[in-house]
Amino acid sequence: MNELEQKGYKAKKASYELGHLSSVEKNQGLLAVSKALWEKRGKIIEENQKDIKNAKERGINEALLDRLTLTEERIRSMAEGLKQITQIEDPIGEVAIMKKRPNGLQIGQKRVPLGVIGIIYEARPNVTADAFGLCFKTGNAVILKGGKEALFSNIAIVNIIRDTLFTAGLSRDAVQLIEDTQRSTTLALMKLNQYIDVLIPRGGQGLIKTVVENSTIPVIETGVGNCHIYIDEYADINQGVSIAVNAKTQRPGVCNAMETLLIHEKIAYPFLSELFPILASFSVEIRGDEKVKNLFPTVSKATEEDWSQEYLDYILAIKIVSSLEEAMDHIQLYGTGHSEAIITQNYTRAQRFLEEVDAAAVYVNASTRFTDGYEFGFGAEIGISTQKLHARGPMGLKELTTTKYIIYGTGQIRM
Amino acid sequence: MNELEQKGYKAKKASYELGHLSSVEKNQGLLAVSKALWEKRGKIIEENQKDIKNAKERGINEALLDRLTLTEERIRSMAEGLKQITQIEDPIGEVAIMKKRPNGLQIGQKRVPLGVIGIIYEARPNVTADAFGLCFKTGNAVILKGGKEALFSNIAIVNIIRDTLFTAGLSRDAVQLIEDTQRSTTLALMKLNQYIDVLIPRGGQGLIKTVVENSTIPVIETGVGNCHIYIDEYADINQGVSIAVNAKTQRPGVCNAMETLLIHEKIAYPFLSELFPILASFSVEIRGDEKVKNLFPTVSKATEEDWSQEYLDYILAIKIVSSLEEAMDHIQLYGTGHSEAIITQNYTRAQRFLEEVDAAAVYVNASTRFTDGYEFGFGAEIGISTQKLHARGPMGLKELTTTKYIIYGTGQIRM
Repeated sequence: MNELEQKGYKAKKASYELGHLSSVEKNQGLLAVSKALWEKRGKIIEENQKDIKNAKERGINEALLDRLTLTEERIRSMAEGLKQITQIEDPIGEVAIMKKRPNGLQIGQKRVPLGVIGIIYEARPNVTADAFGLCFKTGNAVILKGGKEALFSNIAIVNIIRDTLFTAGLSRDAVQLIEDTQRSTTLALMKLNQYIDVLIPRGGQGLIKTVVENSTIPVIETGVGNCHIYIDEYADINQGVSIAVNAKTQRPGVCNAMETLLIHEKIAYPFLSELFPILASFSVEIRGDEKVKNLFPTVSKATEEDWSQEYLDYILAIKIVSSLEEAMDHIQLYGTGHSEAIITQNYTRAQRFLEEVDAAAVYVNASTRFTDGYEFGFGAEIGISTQKLHARGPMGLKELTTTKYIIYGTGQIRM
Repeated sequence: MNELEQKGYKAKKASYELGHLSSVEKNQGLLAVSKALWEKRGKIIEENQKDIKNAKERGINEALLDRLTLTEERIRSMAEGLKQITQIEDPIGEVAIMKKRPNGLQIGQKRVPLGVIGIIYEARPNVTADAFGLCFKTGNAVILKGGKEALFSNIAIVNIIRDTLFTAGLSRDAVQLIEDTQRSTTLALMKLNQYIDVLIPRGGQGLIKTVVENSTIPVIETGVGNCHIYIDEYADINQGVSIAVNAKTQRPGVCNAMETLLIHEKIAYPFLSELFPILASFSVEIRGDEKVKNLFPTVSKATEEDWSQEYLDYILAIKIVSSLEEAMDHIQLYGTGHSEAIITQNYTRAQRFLEEVDAAAVYVNASTRFTDGYEFGFGAEIGISTQKLHARGPMGLKELTTTKYIIYGTGQIRM
């Protein structure tokens, strides 16, 4: 057994124990870890400084450096996050359906942990504690593979978690970190079907694509959001402007922000005349199609590429359409199945949009920015699934579980 | 666009239409197809004869030939199967949860079709109509890739279905067959992520392994069952013997049949003394471990390989264990997570087995043969999932669907 297989084996073994812990035991473990992370923040920051120094030497950009950096404040919110997870109801053990078949068999469907979850992510050390917390609360063991830029930080955090669990009499192998940063090791991790039940990539499009293409373990795809808002002919202009501004500017770097605005030709001029000055105050760059340019000649021209881009930035593509159908066709073609919204006062159009648009979350008269575990009322989330199997939309604790059938018999045989 | 991409594109387009059909329209389509298959049975049998002739020339074995053969009787049950699917409740459109968030957003989770389902299967032409029926009822388009041995039969069946749908004013692209039997085409199908939402392999271990290893589309694994029955020290011997005989001999060629019997040492001699004569009357070959051989020297010796084999035949491996833990460790190591049973009158042992064994279906005092869509009360099934994502155990109509969040707003923006 190589190191990877050993970690897989240990995780599987730990998962059997974790699956049978009571909610009380799990919450005690989470609170102990929360406390330890805060108490040992000095050590974490010290190790994080090494990562920052290395990163600066390699010249990584400001945004990445910001994500990599751990401050006292950020460690406080990591610790708080774990406390909050103890407040969420434990889904494990629930038997949703139990019925008696004509032959007397009692068949129930019971919620159980997935087993071992692999999480592959980028240089965001706060994900380390967060992913552990969600997996632990649901009775899963987790194998973490974080970005190499955050290696020292991740080792420090994982060691504190493991030591704390051990002291509390729990299995330290509930969490393990793959420290080897070679690409070949990451690829081997994606094929460790024997020990890992599910793989969740958290990060940008490139990371997700690599995992989907190489993993033989079932994957839950998360996150890429090329989200649209369609302003219908029958929109309330004030409401539409307020929502469009919110969806573009409230936090442009996240997956549920709007990337393309579609607008019905009959309302385009008055609507955009109101919208543009506000977006200009946020320095949003506009890229319009031919029809937008005809109305507002100073706007720059959108190319074919703009329609499929997730800018994650203060840039907005705009297309004028002549019907609801044209808007929905555009969304079908370029959307990533994340969050899509229509702004309209017309009942039939609202219902058609809800019915026909194929995405994780479809909105009428609200900002796409609400697609989020907290906003949906699930508490913490592990990501937003944009695929259709198992989980779609914000994934809370329940999405980290599966079910098994339990059958109580009295000697039944099949005829 | 090559032929495969064209079919993918057409399937995706058809899926938008299918997703919005009412249950009444879908049932009418199914009944029309059911009628047409029966009326055109002559043509189907004629084409099937070509497949049989080719298969005999290539010298395929009797069991495969039997599966390939379509008789009037078998076409009748294909047609009946479609009629039965009209009787199952349509899961599409159900909004299981609709709640109002503090900000007034109404968030509901609505059941919708997966979209396009790809099914890769072997030379069983009856799967063709069956897979179409289940996918159609759930509003999904289906792309079928059957075994090359059944090509003429499949073309005949699919053409009848397509023509019937067309006549009924429905999209014929609800079902399409990949006729190109080259391996490279099958591999390309497994990477058609742009158009196919889910891939379901139906067949033997080799087929499933190939799909899992090569597909970049999410896969639902079905079927391989290395099922165990553990006879506990506190078992009722008569009950245990009856269940063991049923699980081994009632239909040994299916995935929920027992392959290995585990038995507590304290009950082994009296139990096996009763069991062996009955199994002998079914000509079941016994392969025992060292301890079994010590008690019954004429039994042949089980090797390491026997523990992981899915015989699908009148062969049974038997191992004597000295504890419940040893039995569960054996199941964890060699089981495929399909169906596992304990026979015991001891409450604690029954509960521990149900809790700790990690499989799709875990039984107390009943035959593993019950793991089946009809027996569980779901009606027709597309297969039995042995993975943990999305679906676990028998997959009925609901498992061919996903959900989307629909959100009714009144102008909400995120703060």
